Amino acid sequence: MRLVSHLVRGAARPGVLVPAPDGDRVLDLGPALPGRSVLDVLADPAVRAAAQAALDAARPADLLDRAAVRLLPPVHPGTVYAVGHNYVGHLGRDADPAQRPAHPNVFVKTPNTLGGPDDPVVLPPAAHEVDYEGEIAVVLARRAHRVPLDEAEACIGGLTLYDDVSARDWQRRTSQWALGKCADGFGPLGPAVVTTDEALPLAGRELTVERDGVVTARASTDDMVFSPAFLVHHLSQLLTLEPGDVIATGTPAKLPEAADAHRPLRHGDTVTVRVTGLGALTTTFVDPPASPGARTADEPTPTRTTTGGLP
Amino acid sequence: MRLVSHLVRGAARPGVLVPAPDGDRVLDLGPALPGRSVLDVLADPAVRAAAQAALDAARPADLLDRAAVRLLPPVHPGTVYAVGHNYVGHLGRDADPAQRPAHPNVFVKTPNTLGGPDDPVVLPPAAHEVDYEGEIAVVLARRAHRVPLDEAEACIGGLTLYDDVSARDWQRRTSQWALGKCADGFGPLGPAVVTTDEALPLAGRELTVERDGVVTARASTDDMVFSPAFLVHHLSQLLTLEPGDVIATGTPAKLPEAADAHRPLRHGDTVTVRVTGLGALTTTFVDPPASPGARTADEPTPTRTTTGGLP
Repeated sequence: MRLVSHLVRGAARPGVLVPAPDGDRVLDLGPALPGRSVLDVLADPAVRAAAQAALDAARPADLLDRAAVRLLPPVHPGTVYAVGHNYVGHLGRDADPAQRPAHPNVFVKTPNTLGGPDDPVVLPPAAHEVDYEGEIAVVLARRAHRVPLDEAEACIGGLTLYDDVSARDWQRRTSQWALGKCADGFGPLGPAVVTTDEALPLAGRELTVERDGVVTARASTDDMVFSPAFLVHHLSQLLTLEPGDVIATGTPAKLPEAADAHRPLRHGDTVTVRVTGLGALTTTFVDPPASPGARTADEPTPTRTTTGGLP
Repeated sequence: MRLVSHLVRGAARPGVLVPAPDGDRVLDLGPALPGRSVLDVLADPAVRAAAQAALDAARPADLLDRAAVRLLPPVHPGTVYAVGHNYVGHLGRDADPAQRPAHPNVFVKTPNTLGGPDDPVVLPPAAHEVDYEGEIAVVLARRAHRVPLDEAEACIGGLTLYDDVSARDWQRRTSQWALGKCADGFGPLGPAVVTTDEALPLAGRELTVERDGVVTARASTDDMVFSPAFLVHHLSQLLTLEPGDVIATGTPAKLPEAADAHRPLRHGDTVTVRVTGLGALTTTFVDPPASPGARTADEPTPTRTTTGGLP
């Protein structure tokens, strides 16, 4: 099941995304599951069964056009953990199988970064080198605290897609990446959480990232270094993962020609993250709306250079 | 005013910490401010005035012994931002005035790290080099988004103390520090938020850190590189700081003899962070309770705070 959250008269409702050749549809689960969320469907077997029953009973006329629906972030994670350098293989310039990392390199995306599948990302005036990344995101359905590896997969509710948007100029200034990673809206998530019965195992799926329709990164999930289950196990040794928390599993490096041609994102650019069986997340980048009274940073303007390699 | 949150019959109430030579006292603000929090006192002038009136009207018999009160984290930040290397000067081994950093080196402490002044920190079995840091923490009272430097101080509600507990073995493994910084309970905060009328300016205050009664770090706030107001301004250029969010302003380096004698924290160790006019935060470190057979679930976890989803 591909679970979405959508807006109906100002409130979020769960739904099911139903792919179709002539355009995706959405089944509104609100009538069948009043007061419930996507997380409830992931975490509670009874709610899950009711969602499945509603989907099985749905007639074509019950489905809404995807284009007429405003999708929200499918879950609201307390924390989004993200992983750098989690793909090896020959497809990316920076990938070197001999340099397989020994430990996941984890950083945090703060709650203000969360964005929905239909939200544009606003380019902050103070950031001059905004870049994109395309990732598979793990959504927790159960609390995970010191979970053995062989029990970790059972804590996962499903997988979705993520764009780890990054201000490279800010990221590069200091050893820790937080400010470059945590600008408002720098974490579009969605469109749908694909439940584990469809999303796992990940083996053999293709992840592509397109910028304005051109593929700039391409990798197989077989080249992922640390699996979703391992990441849950590993993080849970120190910290408690809560239902709805997200682990973004890292982006593959840009293809060499894309890295060479890379320039910072500008108003109107679009980026699509696409993974076999997990759907596609398309994000538009826009300048902030004009606000005559707004004063911006007195930061020195950094040199504008392209960076294709930073995670 | 030194604002605390304390537990009364299972619920958090605001209060005022009243220092006294024979032992601190606490005025329960619950009767005067039903349903209000420390953040309400910081953010709402009318609530603040009511708190001040209750304090002015309090008789000695109205005050509770501090030792009989269970203090909670004074606020529940959606995000704790933390800064590395924010002290220069001659007191710490690593301090070199010529190496004043150009930009704050910011990282994130996740919501699961939050601890109250009376909560012990549980040493995770997977971490073998747990260390402490002593810091001044800035508490936001107003939302801050692209705030000019000269307006940043007005967004601050007060200052409190923070121990940025760190698992050095995990922190050192990878370029990003998150896993070493974000273990459950690794962020004791408090005891009181000292309102800005008493807490600012910071100039000329002494920060000390004691381990088991021995001073291991000592610095003047005059050696702080990036001020509270600058940090609010700087972070707000990219991200929106929300009321209740916290910026931990960094620890001074350990004194040379303390660095030489340092060993990882062990069961029963205590650490006290003390700053002139801001009080003292003492934390005890303990091994996890024995949990025979249970590998995943049965241990008490530190207070989990607000989920911090998008507003």
